Amino acid sequence: MLYFKEMEHRTIIFVTGNEHKIREAEAILSPLGIILEQNDCGYPELQEDELESIAAFGAEWAATMLNREVMVDDSGLFIEALGGFPGPYSAYVFDRLGNERILKLMENEVNRKATFRCVIGYCCPGAKAQVFTGEVIGEIAKESRGNSGFGYDPVFEVDGVTFGEMGEDEKNRLSHRYRALVRLAEWLRVRH
Amino acid sequence: MLYFKEMEHRTIIFVTGNEHKIREAEAILSPLGIILEQNDCGYPELQEDELESIAAFGAEWAATMLNREVMVDDSGLFIEALGGFPGPYSAYVFDRLGNERILKLMENEVNRKATFRCVIGYCCPGAKAQVFTGEVIGEIAKESRGNSGFGYDPVFEVDGVTFGEMGEDEKNRLSHRYRALVRLAEWLRVRH
Repeated sequence: MLYFKEMEHRTIIFVTGNEHKIREAEAILSPLGIILEQNDCGYPELQEDELESIAAFGAEWAATMLNREVMVDDSGLFIEALGGFPGPYSAYVFDRLGNERILKLMENEVNRKATFRCVIGYCCPGAKAQVFTGEVIGEIAKESRGNSGFGYDPVFEVDGVTFGEMGEDEKNRLSHRYRALVRLAEWLRVRH
Repeated sequence: MLYFKEMEHRTIIFVTGNEHKIREAEAILSPLGIILEQNDCGYPELQEDELESIAAFGAEWAATMLNREVMVDDSGLFIEALGGFPGPYSAYVFDRLGNERILKLMENEVNRKATFRCVIGYCCPGAKAQVFTGEVIGEIAKESRGNSGFGYDPVFEVDGVTFGEMGEDEKNRLSHRYRALVRLAEWLRVRH
């Protein structure tokens, strides 16, 4: 019984500026007795080719800084024909180039494979970070379609339907962030 | 005399993997009695829109880590019509997209203005970093020209001549890195 009592009181700090991400994570983690607390302190995001290194560094930095159990997340779109571009810089590139210029870069590309990846970094103070990756494999559409979602959603398609054409529930069930969160939840359940 | 003796023995650690940069900086700093020592330890490079923040964070990190007076440098190409892209991610973007795709993105752009910027971060242990910026304003050429230099040099032109068409001496006298180094040298000369 003591075990369950401890679980009931367990809180993880989610370092993010995005309240929507808190709600999405709570839906998956609250059945494990985990309470999430948002903290918008930010953390240094490294220039690294792999999201894993960025999330691990950020989680360790935040765990040390706050002296609490923390999680952070980072995500990106990796286009195979462009060597993984825009990858870890997806948000920066979207703000500057937008989807029209991404389509222009892909104009003559036969290989349209692309992967949406999300990595969650989790860390306790003094420990090494753990990382949990979720991904969705799809293709870059020939044209922008649908106005749901945000960012690259209208040009990323799975089985011929873009994320911009999907409802939020459908997209969330398929999403890279959902898959990463489920991996974190499985690990927390087994370990604690 | 004591003053000059101290100057003779002054050493700054240049944290870089690039020996060529050491020689370029030595030519400008050695007349001030400064000796440069290369250290290839690397430093965390932040994802920030401004090179200044990246260089300042890197210099402070390295000064603390090595407990020595250090300098670091960071540079990038900022294309006005693309909102400053590729900016701080210039090396990553060059490796993935290359100059042909940069030209493709610029195909129908009338505004071809671009700036090569270099920021040197300098820091003593326990102090705030100082940053020194150098820049060259030019244009994105209509086509790649010249095979000297590296990176974006063949598509960046000043007065109709690309950096790829210039000799190394000519380019160095004009370069953003040279200008940033001169600013650092001026500051060190006045301050010490």
